[in-house]
Amino acid sequence: MEAELEFFFDYGSPYSYLANTQLLGLSQRTNCVVKYRPMLLGGVFKATGNRSPAAEPVESKRLYQGVEMQRWVSHYDVPFFYNPFFPINTLRVMRMAHAATQMNVFDKFHATVFSAMWERGKNLGDIEILIAELIHAGLDGDSLAKMSEEASVKQSLLATSEEAVRRGAFGAPTFFCGGEMYFGNDRLQFVEKALREE
Amino acid sequence: MEAELEFFFDYGSPYSYLANTQLLGLSQRTNCVVKYRPMLLGGVFKATGNRSPAAEPVESKRLYQGVEMQRWVSHYDVPFFYNPFFPINTLRVMRMAHAATQMNVFDKFHATVFSAMWERGKNLGDIEILIAELIHAGLDGDSLAKMSEEASVKQSLLATSEEAVRRGAFGAPTFFCGGEMYFGNDRLQFVEKALREE
Repeated sequence: MEAELEFFFDYGSPYSYLANTQLLGLSQRTNCVVKYRPMLLGGVFKATGNRSPAAEPVESKRLYQGVEMQRWVSHYDVPFFYNPFFPINTLRVMRMAHAATQMNVFDKFHATVFSAMWERGKNLGDIEILIAELIHAGLDGDSLAKMSEEASVKQSLLATSEEAVRRGAFGAPTFFCGGEMYFGNDRLQFVEKALREE
Repeated sequence: MEAELEFFFDYGSPYSYLANTQLLGLSQRTNCVVKYRPMLLGGVFKATGNRSPAAEPVESKRLYQGVEMQRWVSHYDVPFFYNPFFPINTLRVMRMAHAATQMNVFDKFHATVFSAMWERGKNLGDIEILIAELIHAGLDGDSLAKMSEEASVKQSLLATSEEAVRRGAFGAPTFFCGGEMYFGNDRLQFVEKALREE
């Protein structure tokens, strides 16, 4: 039986993007199935009392974040464009991820949104820009936007975010596998080790 | 010419201990020289406005720290005993590290103190317990204690802590090599990569 790796993420989180770039290779190497769990990071922060790294009050720690980000980008050798609109309100786009799942277009939606957010620096907090990006990728952006306003979709995002918090998450990305929680892109090596041992 | 790796640490920091267990192997693999830079982490926190992980206000984040610690201990396969007196006021022991350097007994002092703190759970905030540990290891604990009260030794610790802050440190362990700063035990892989490329 294939092991399952749950990936709780928010499109507005650069380290969720970085981790996401590694998941295909990881799943191939470990023969695991990645279960994508779009959550609202802002909601997780609010529920736990945590805050965004962007709101880090210690200046030297905040400055170091930029150095770290570039190191990971170099280490992974992936495209990255620091989004000038960061931090972005991701409520609509995260709801749309749940709508995309219901409309069976999640994979394409997922790739499009992460790329627009962290490879092309688009302001996806602006619904019109978001819809245009989706349409450009061949998705039905208007239907996704409309569906994202339905109560069941709103509830689905809320439930996922609440589940993450209940299971111990306080940030993104957060992984669960084999009953263990792993926080952060920089713990993918421990995740891989755990998957190999399962 | 051998590359130099500066290791800014505090004996009261468990991740400084964990990183320290890896430095011999790292220096052998990369042919670098480790320069030990004992600093007062409490002073660094105060100067930067940062706080101890022990004072983390987000409950789930604080609980996760214990999980993480055990993962690193298992990963490195090193002895570890969570110090029940943590967090410990390390002013005296950090001053003594500078005294030990001046008395040319730093290596033995260093090994003794990290072991007492994180392998045997001793309350090294208590000067009598600290001196006893040093004497037990064959060091002149009384002379070290006396010397640690000298102005030049106090100044030496202060200068090191201030230098760390000036160069961008906000926590421990912090490494510098090749003009770059690396924060955290979990960045030793990047440190090693940098040392190999020098």
